[in-house]
Amino acid sequence: MSAPHDHAHTSTLSVEALTQLLETIFLRHGVSAEAAGVLAANCANAERDGAHSHGVFRMPGYVSTLNSGWVNGKALPQVEDVASGFVRVDAGGGFAQPALAAARPLLVEKARSAGIAVLAIRNSHHFAALWPDVEPFAEDGLVALSVVNSMTCVVPHGADRPLFGTNPIAFAAPRAGGAPIVFDLATSAIAHGDVQIAARQGEKLPSGMGVDSLGQPTCDPKAILEGGALLPFGGHKGSALSMMVELLAAALTGGHFSFEFDWKNHPGAKTPWTGQLLIVIDPSKAAGQPFAERSQELVRQMHGVGLKRLPGDRRHLQRARSLAEGIALDAQTLAQLRELAGH
Amino acid sequence: MSAPHDHAHTSTLSVEALTQLLETIFLRHGVSAEAAGVLAANCANAERDGAHSHGVFRMPGYVSTLNSGWVNGKALPQVEDVASGFVRVDAGGGFAQPALAAARPLLVEKARSAGIAVLAIRNSHHFAALWPDVEPFAEDGLVALSVVNSMTCVVPHGADRPLFGTNPIAFAAPRAGGAPIVFDLATSAIAHGDVQIAARQGEKLPSGMGVDSLGQPTCDPKAILEGGALLPFGGHKGSALSMMVELLAAALTGGHFSFEFDWKNHPGAKTPWTGQLLIVIDPSKAAGQPFAERSQELVRQMHGVGLKRLPGDRRHLQRARSLAEGIALDAQTLAQLRELAGH
Repeated sequence: MSAPHDHAHTSTLSVEALTQLLETIFLRHGVSAEAAGVLAANCANAERDGAHSHGVFRMPGYVSTLNSGWVNGKALPQVEDVASGFVRVDAGGGFAQPALAAARPLLVEKARSAGIAVLAIRNSHHFAALWPDVEPFAEDGLVALSVVNSMTCVVPHGADRPLFGTNPIAFAAPRAGGAPIVFDLATSAIAHGDVQIAARQGEKLPSGMGVDSLGQPTCDPKAILEGGALLPFGGHKGSALSMMVELLAAALTGGHFSFEFDWKNHPGAKTPWTGQLLIVIDPSKAAGQPFAERSQELVRQMHGVGLKRLPGDRRHLQRARSLAEGIALDAQTLAQLRELAGH
Repeated sequence: MSAPHDHAHTSTLSVEALTQLLETIFLRHGVSAEAAGVLAANCANAERDGAHSHGVFRMPGYVSTLNSGWVNGKALPQVEDVASGFVRVDAGGGFAQPALAAARPLLVEKARSAGIAVLAIRNSHHFAALWPDVEPFAEDGLVALSVVNSMTCVVPHGADRPLFGTNPIAFAAPRAGGAPIVFDLATSAIAHGDVQIAARQGEKLPSGMGVDSLGQPTCDPKAILEGGALLPFGGHKGSALSMMVELLAAALTGGHFSFEFDWKNHPGAKTPWTGQLLIVIDPSKAAGQPFAERSQELVRQMHGVGLKRLPGDRRHLQRARSLAEGIALDAQTLAQLRELAGH
């Protein structure tokens, strides 16, 4: 599957219709009703927002990993109330998003009461973009930070073999008179999904993104995917942040490090079985002018020094377009999705 | 002043003697006894650990900013107990380190009880390295993250004029059978102190660090300092993290953004008047194997893929050497320090 703009023959679906189609696929492949709704909305919304590397492009991977028995689509997340600012969830070998959904009310209640709260998800699979996990907190007036580790594919700065995952960091903050400030960045030089898309489309990558199976720098996405590895972004600094993500998302949750799980008995397995951490802060506890007014002032000043686009701006434009005009999918992609749905 | 290795004539002081000398300088320039002890230990320990850009190199700047009346060396930090996980401090226009010291017992108590706690320092000046603020928490078995914004000298990615500060992020985590894992990274491509040292020593910088007064890329540290600006590390990703630091350290504390304060009526002022945020987590609340054993396992695996040196390793080597052999200072530096101390 590839991004819709590459094909002349496209169909247009409403966000609701796409969500429903994806939900059918999840249900048909052993996912519980509750988790199917969460995962379908997550994936359809990524496609809606133009985040193609985490949109319907991921569906064959979801199906493959579910069919392999690697992930438990029917897992019931167990929420543990540990302390006045600390919530844990055992995701039971299921996906992280339903675990977050199950713990979210308690997490928000604690953040509003204590001023800050942390959610530690373990025994979970994360196969989606990270910004959808934090954005809703900012829409509710809270500041949220999340990290998730993934699977060994990044060479630590100064090492010669891969160890870390792409280990993204996502952040969301409310803003007065505008959409929340949201970013989601892989601590690898490039996201794994973007390497896969480049390989599929036969495109070269910019230099500095990865190495081949011999550890030599390469711009060939296939060489990175076939025995090669990614590099961290920003040299030793990105590498330090990736290490921090391993510690927060795995050591602090009771989850697996990116190098610890072994899926070789599950051919077709695609999803990293790790952990995820979320920190949520209630900015109404802060001194001074309301946070959302202050963040709006920062944005105003950023535009004042010549910044054309904030992180997330492109996503909001695409979101508005998708909601108004529907989501365009090429004929081949839509046919594949319908086949996966048993239509 | 320059790093000691550049001069043939050096004197050696014990860490205690250097700390005492610096304390005398602070006391002589209007700093309270309590703050002088905190600041002297911070600065002497940076020198002890080989962090020359934040060691005695900073002392003339401290004196200059104190003499200008820009910072209140006798400020009494006001600690505010806001919620079960939220502590605020009004630093009263003084330095951030005494404010942190004043709030630290309450912060640690809350972190151990709630599982996580946040300290929001406002109305504060920070002129030191950030790792000394987080390392002690890890030595007490806690995980700590801190951010501090500084003063406009970094061009946001995609903008054409500076707005952000160097905005460092520091992280510390305990480790079984070894020193804590600690890093401290400027979200600028290079720390401001390192640009000053390069300018003083007549050295060129690597490319990608900054721009001149016309916004053009330059490797000349003087061109960066005289009307030019720094770039964020890692392109749009480092820039997003720098933006996050502004939001956490200023908007969430009630402090100033890096572009908001105006010191033009205080000639000689050097210190950014902003805010600082610390998040402290108690890993004993986490599920699974003890955190410190898990972090040690991560370190073991990092060495296993060929990593020679962890962030902080060089600092620990230098620390051990300084404690055993004393701190070497060149004759000129020592003479300047003694003059500032009125000896």
